[in-house]
Amino acid sequence: MHQPSQTTFAVVGKPWAGRFSAPTDAFVEAFTASVDFDRRLYRYDIQGSIAHATMLARQGILSQAEGEQICAGLMAVRARIEAGDFVWSIPLEDVHMNVETALTEAIGEAGKRLHTGRSRNDQVATDVRLWLREEIDTIRDAITRFQDALLDLAEREADTVMPGFTHLQVAQPITFGHHMMAWFEMLERDRARLADCRGRVNVMPLGAAALAGTTYPIDRAFTADLLGFARPAENSLDAVSDRDFAIEFTAAAAILMMHLSRFSEELILWSSAQFGFVELSDSFCTGSSIMPQKKNPDVPELVRGKSGRIFGHLMGLLTLMKGQPLAYNKDNQEDKEPLFDTVDNVKGCLKVYADMMVHVTCRRERMRAAAAQGFSTATDLADYLVRKGIAFRDAHEIVGQAVALGVREGRDLAQLSIEELRGFSERIEPDVYTVLTLDGSVAARDHLGGTAPAQVRAAIARARARSAA
Amino acid sequence: MHQPSQTTFAVVGKPWAGRFSAPTDAFVEAFTASVDFDRRLYRYDIQGSIAHATMLARQGILSQAEGEQICAGLMAVRARIEAGDFVWSIPLEDVHMNVETALTEAIGEAGKRLHTGRSRNDQVATDVRLWLREEIDTIRDAITRFQDALLDLAEREADTVMPGFTHLQVAQPITFGHHMMAWFEMLERDRARLADCRGRVNVMPLGAAALAGTTYPIDRAFTADLLGFARPAENSLDAVSDRDFAIEFTAAAAILMMHLSRFSEELILWSSAQFGFVELSDSFCTGSSIMPQKKNPDVPELVRGKSGRIFGHLMGLLTLMKGQPLAYNKDNQEDKEPLFDTVDNVKGCLKVYADMMVHVTCRRERMRAAAAQGFSTATDLADYLVRKGIAFRDAHEIVGQAVALGVREGRDLAQLSIEELRGFSERIEPDVYTVLTLDGSVAARDHLGGTAPAQVRAAIARARARSAA
Amino acid sequence: MHQPSQTTFAVVGKPWAGRFSAPTDAFVEAFTASVDFDRRLYRYDIQGSIAHATMLARQGILSQAEGEQICAGLMAVRARIEAGDFVWSIPLEDVHMNVETALTEAIGEAGKRLHTGRSRNDQVATDVRLWLREEIDTIRDAITRFQDALLDLAEREADTVMPGFTHLQVAQPITFGHHMMAWFEMLERDRARLADCRGRVNVMPLGAAALAGTTYPIDRAFTADLLGFARPAENSLDAVSDRDFAIEFTAAAAILMMHLSRFSEELILWSSAQFGFVELSDSFCTGSSIMPQKKNPDVPELVRGKSGRIFGHLMGLLTLMKGQPLAYNKDNQEDKEPLFDTVDNVKGCLKVYADMMVHVTCRRERMRAAAAQGFSTATDLADYLVRKGIAFRDAHEIVGQAVALGVREGRDLAQLSIEELRGFSERIEPDVYTVLTLDGSVAARDHLGGTAPAQVRAAIARARARSAA
Amino acid sequence: MHQPSQTTFAVVGKPWAGRFSAPTDAFVEAFTASVDFDRRLYRYDIQGSIAHATMLARQGILSQAEGEQICAGLMAVRARIEAGDFVWSIPLEDVHMNVETALTEAIGEAGKRLHTGRSRNDQVATDVRLWLREEIDTIRDAITRFQDALLDLAEREADTVMPGFTHLQVAQPITFGHHMMAWFEMLERDRARLADCRGRVNVMPLGAAALAGTTYPIDRAFTADLLGFARPAENSLDAVSDRDFAIEFTAAAAILMMHLSRFSEELILWSSAQFGFVELSDSFCTGSSIMPQKKNPDVPELVRGKSGRIFGHLMGLLTLMKGQPLAYNKDNQEDKEPLFDTVDNVKGCLKVYADMMVHVTCRRERMRAAAAQGFSTATDLADYLVRKGIAFRDAHEIVGQAVALGVREGRDLAQLSIEELRGFSERIEPDVYTVLTLDGSVAARDHLGGTAPAQVRAAIARARARSAA
Repeated sequence: MHQPSQTTFAVVGKPWAGRFSAPTDAFVEAFTASVDFDRRLYRYDIQGSIAHATMLARQGILSQAEGEQICAGLMAVRARIEAGDFVWSIPLEDVHMNVETALTEAIGEAGKRLHTGRSRNDQVATDVRLWLREEIDTIRDAITRFQDALLDLAEREADTVMPGFTHLQVAQPITFGHHMMAWFEMLERDRARLADCRGRVNVMPLGAAALAGTTYPIDRAFTADLLGFARPAENSLDAVSDRDFAIEFTAAAAILMMHLSRFSEELILWSSAQFGFVELSDSFCTGSSIMPQKKNPDVPELVRGKSGRIFGHLMGLLTLMKGQPLAYNKDNQEDKEPLFDTVDNVKGCLKVYADMMVHVTCRRERMRAAAAQGFSTATDLADYLVRKGIAFRDAHEIVGQAVALGVREGRDLAQLSIEELRGFSERIEPDVYTVLTLDGSVAARDHLGGTAPAQVRAAIARARARSAA
Repeated sequence: MHQPSQTTFAVVGKPWAGRFSAPTDAFVEAFTASVDFDRRLYRYDIQGSIAHATMLARQGILSQAEGEQICAGLMAVRARIEAGDFVWSIPLEDVHMNVETALTEAIGEAGKRLHTGRSRNDQVATDVRLWLREEIDTIRDAITRFQDALLDLAEREADTVMPGFTHLQVAQPITFGHHMMAWFEMLERDRARLADCRGRVNVMPLGAAALAGTTYPIDRAFTADLLGFARPAENSLDAVSDRDFAIEFTAAAAILMMHLSRFSEELILWSSAQFGFVELSDSFCTGSSIMPQKKNPDVPELVRGKSGRIFGHLMGLLTLMKGQPLAYNKDNQEDKEPLFDTVDNVKGCLKVYADMMVHVTCRRERMRAAAAQGFSTATDLADYLVRKGIAFRDAHEIVGQAVALGVREGRDLAQLSIEELRGFSERIEPDVYTVLTLDGSVAARDHLGGTAPAQVRAAIARARARSAA
Repeated sequence: MHQPSQTTFAVVGKPWAGRFSAPTDAFVEAFTASVDFDRRLYRYDIQGSIAHATMLARQGILSQAEGEQICAGLMAVRARIEAGDFVWSIPLEDVHMNVETALTEAIGEAGKRLHTGRSRNDQVATDVRLWLREEIDTIRDAITRFQDALLDLAEREADTVMPGFTHLQVAQPITFGHHMMAWFEMLERDRARLADCRGRVNVMPLGAAALAGTTYPIDRAFTADLLGFARPAENSLDAVSDRDFAIEFTAAAAILMMHLSRFSEELILWSSAQFGFVELSDSFCTGSSIMPQKKNPDVPELVRGKSGRIFGHLMGLLTLMKGQPLAYNKDNQEDKEPLFDTVDNVKGCLKVYADMMVHVTCRRERMRAAAAQGFSTATDLADYLVRKGIAFRDAHEIVGQAVALGVREGRDLAQLSIEELRGFSERIEPDVYTVLTLDGSVAARDHLGGTAPAQVRAAIARARARSAA
Repeated sequence: MHQPSQTTFAVVGKPWAGRFSAPTDAFVEAFTASVDFDRRLYRYDIQGSIAHATMLARQGILSQAEGEQICAGLMAVRARIEAGDFVWSIPLEDVHMNVETALTEAIGEAGKRLHTGRSRNDQVATDVRLWLREEIDTIRDAITRFQDALLDLAEREADTVMPGFTHLQVAQPITFGHHMMAWFEMLERDRARLADCRGRVNVMPLGAAALAGTTYPIDRAFTADLLGFARPAENSLDAVSDRDFAIEFTAAAAILMMHLSRFSEELILWSSAQFGFVELSDSFCTGSSIMPQKKNPDVPELVRGKSGRIFGHLMGLLTLMKGQPLAYNKDNQEDKEPLFDTVDNVKGCLKVYADMMVHVTCRRERMRAAAAQGFSTATDLADYLVRKGIAFRDAHEIVGQAVALGVREGRDLAQLSIEELRGFSERIEPDVYTVLTLDGSVAARDHLGGTAPAQVRAAIARARARSAA
């Protein structure tokens, strides 16, 4: 979740000093520098520069030799960074100037030619898109891994009866497998949303230069091909100022985190002594420094808490862009930290959930006992009456009165005698008791999307087929 | 932007009174009722009920006669509502019970059978999706209409030179047409995002009933077909508790409003005396009650202000869902007002912008004059030097010094003599002045996405072809 | 929670038409008008105008007769509005012009003199502050009323033992009264925050005119006195552009709603069959249209849901102001609807909670039984060992092992034999069982802020004394 | 803005392992640990522990010798940390266990007695409050320093005429000094809000222990005195679960950042070539890697951008707390990073603004010239007519027509001949030209809060007197 340890910083000259007569204030230099966080992008910065140089050489803007020197030099810089043999400089402001300066130090004159026909404005937008595209793929894989764990769990517990809740009141019996498949569906939408988002990430700003394009005969389609982008951006002003992709990704991440927060809420409830529906593995819980008996569901709680953080990043990014005139403004530098933090936390939460769900123990008897209380088959009784020819609204009224009796006397519907039940409607006959059982109730909801075990298994099969496709 | 005027409310009985022994507190009744805002959904509620009744009759759950009676009755209720001849009741809580009660009053017993095999939980989710699907189509059309205005404007001003800005400092000359096409691109992404969102809206919850499905032999695929849904929702628990579609739509709307806020910021700047680049029509401005000379760009300012409102709705909806266990909870009732307000404001803003942009007057001479200042062709000079064999980084340094001289003496680069320029580099020759002109600078950025008028016209042509397809 | 029903709108002339050559676009007129919501401020608008006219007459800027005519005329307008005998006009844009136009129609020439030495910019800021000051007082009273209900409940249940939770796991026994006093404390901070906020609301913008002050010899201190403001605002530019008070109020409201959301979460949990700690009155619950047995805690759920709405308003207002240059911009018109909605919802939630809490039934035996499980006195055992000379960290370890045995064997600590307990530490003696009882545990936390019934009663007494002061 | 470089981590035992049978998953350990960021609190953690130990010894809960050993040991641990001679351990989870473990390693048995009568729940809340109290003081001082710079600037430019804007249209002439005093007032409210917030921060949770208080005879008032807290928290449940102070602080910070964002918007506008009202020092600007002429107002842009980040943190914290039942939940661990980041960024922004404003150059002639255009004295003409006996509304209409003529002919009001002016009203006489001058206009707004230089100087004097008091 954190950056590799910080390397020493050296001081060097600015790439834009020509028209300035006073040096940058030292605090301002540190305050406005981004290298402390954007060096994380070095790999994508170098990838982009190699493609740019290759295109420049192909177009004759650089000589072939210069192009080769630059590419080799960039690879050497990358190797040094990865070997931990690189001194990042705050006065050099950002990852771009750090890399380019190192390049020029290494290969001389040719290095100064790399920045031909581009600007840091299109460069940084390209770097972030290359990075985010890869992270989206990683996140989508992490979702799949979590979904696979859910499918296994749903299959194992396809027959496990638990109370379904609305308003946290017992509503109708459902199966634990069916409940897990609800989670699966939410994640399925998350994966789809991220795929749509990826399509809009995968467009290349490079060639927009500072804002207006460049006077060199560049070939943007070629560079886009080299970098695997679907196409170059259509408009240079838009290309350097657009951060929609960052916001859209964070919005998708916020919805995903909202889902994880809901899952967490349920696991925390289910792990409580009062519910006692599941037990998390000791490996995913921690204790208390003062209360020796505690086993706390820290992981779901922390994940639930992290949802706020990601919502905040989304708000921050929307606010960031809200009033900016075109094209690039320095405000945009603030796009990276929330984006990095969102990616790190989403990946961490997905991993820990996928790992944790494999080790969840279902306390089946507790769930069944809970479902047997709370008049969870009252709707089944109403449906029974409808089949006996009573209008649903009237049936609802009749069952409501039977429930009121049960509440008063502390008995569930199945515990009322046939005489008592017939006191509410003469249409009720002894066969009523079969519809009042949990397993009968569950099995009767036997249509696409229903909680019947057969339907849950069919849903699992469809899901597995989809993901195999 | 507002609801039709409120009708009188009558008092009637509750549909769930059976097990209750005390009446609802009067303030609670009003506090928890939603009919005041959700009656806006009546048309979709009736559409859904007609489809549901048709399916029930087809499956033999209702008789054919009952089915026909219900459909005719619902159409009559709809007609009464549209004629303003309908008394909405707060004690009846919501649009669903108001409509159903009116139906039963009109057709008797059969009306009580409509609610067979469904619940308000799947009903309301279906209503909102039907409504939102239609509004998304309306909004996408409104975007297209605005885009068409932009294309016309961009075409008209494809050669109009203005200063391009970064950091609100003059950067390089661009054309006004190019700038308008940047706006076009942002809207193009908005349209695409809404299309993706529509796909996830267009899934049918009906049949999920309260949360677990129903015991009746319903045919969800048939109902989905009747209602034009792509498919029934896969999981009943998810179907009644999912509000992703509302959040995703609001996120797309927030990004769209962020774009409009950025457009507004630019129009406000450009309308100021200091910039003076454009003039809005009197019809889109208002004056001051105290300062007789004022002509204020109220429309862009109000639109800019409305972005915050929509960001707030997004935050509200995310927060709303964040910790809810499955399945339905009353919290969800709070999803409608922000969604309604978002749709109303987005439609209003798009309409007013499309109308306003048709009447924008470009003050071409002011724009050209502004571009002629601020050393906007400095990059062209650097590129010139690169073509003369100097590395870009060195060329940048040379031009920086020339600019510093210009700043000191209050002259632009084109106003420096050839001797002065050659003082910075002997590679500079008299042909330099052609690259220092605005039109030369603009025309030279002649690649896909660049600001050259030819490229702007090509971009317009591509956009028109795309939208014709 | 809603506006009085909308009256017919008439069309009239604009107060700033002089320099305009084209009429306002009809849609723009409706889009930019605020009278639809700001007419709610009419009472404060008239109050401010009466004070302003009184000051103008006192300063000789108006004649005494004009001043009296205006004041009488304004009171007549107010009476007409309150009698429902007033036609609001959208072309007149806002409450200010509607009132002033009606005044001039009623009293003629003198009416046109009212707007001397002020602008709508300082006028609207004054109106909103007058309104909000009064609403803050109302809200603070509503908090007190809710707190009084909590004090009564806390007193009644000062001895009622329940499990205290951390991580939703049973932690230590507490009393229900102590828990209610935690809620009381949160509300106490809310009241204090609102009082601080009121101080910053209670500053008068009037006299700032459009933005720079006015050339008339006004006496702002006198007007401030008339209106009960603590002082006139120090700076005219700030006075017309400042909306801090709206944001600060909404932030305080958001924290208050966060508290209510937490209370709601607890009530929902406690009302579940699994916890069963409290029962809400039927009057504050609703049922289900499909499940006849349901009794849903709608009120807490709705209140919990409404927290998101208020958070959203806060975000909206912050975003609204974020990038505005001074002084007034039309964006600011968007400040009212979120503010109005915040006030309405906060008042509604406080009222319904105060009413509801009076009728909460504590299921004492359920709470006690829950506290008796979950090793809630494990900390007491550790503390016992410390008193016997063992370091706390070692005692914690010893008790942890005893709990592990209890978990394995399904027995609580008090159910372990003295021999078993001594197996973990020989310092344990038969007197240990007194510290393992719930009442002993609770009574032992007998210091300021602790859960001992004596401390809870003392806290109630202090709270009552504070509020009497 | 960043943490000191990360030290090596060592592995050690858990303080709650007693009842656990499986070790913590390695990824979970890192995922749930907080030491990576909360070690920043070490100084406050040790301060709190010293006070706690001192109280324990005074109450006889520890021996005097143990108390002294602990205090000395804690000071030694602090010295080691500050010397960089401390290995932080992730398995030890947090700053608290890291410090306590180091203490016990250093002094043996007595170290294990420190955690008597407290829990990490009250400990961390105490640490954060101690830290935040100090940071609020630092921030309030930083505001004062920035305000002092503004007072100096306002004094220097008390007579400098510039156009005042509403809707970014020239409205009326004001002085630059007056404008700076508007900023001063906003900051004054920020300081006041932080002072109010500090009062609610300065309450001591210690003694609440895990949630219910402790069985030891602690003296909370004594500990509170030692730590400089105003009082111990009234309720133990509230004390460990309350994070209001963090949210309230962040809300105050968000409003402050909103102000800085507004200041930034103005500085960016004023630095543009089109406005040209001010020039920032080269030391506070940066250039472009591609455009040699650029001098960008990076600092205000970055500060403007950072406002979104802080708004996001506020949203995150509100969401974090929204649905948590009492008392402590692991979610709360997520409170620290947004709080730390808020403090760091607020301090950075205030420092850089205070430094920057000292070096702002006012381009007085540009401001005056801008004020001379745009009919900025139109209101003065209307007021003139009122003084000649015309009702304000009529005067407004007359001046509107004069302005319309000026717009058509490109002349300002002062450039219209007396005959032309009299064509609009015969009450106009040659003395009218004195009210149409900028200096006359400014000087005429001579009341408390007005823009007259005398009033600005008086406001500066009042501000200086207030801050001296």
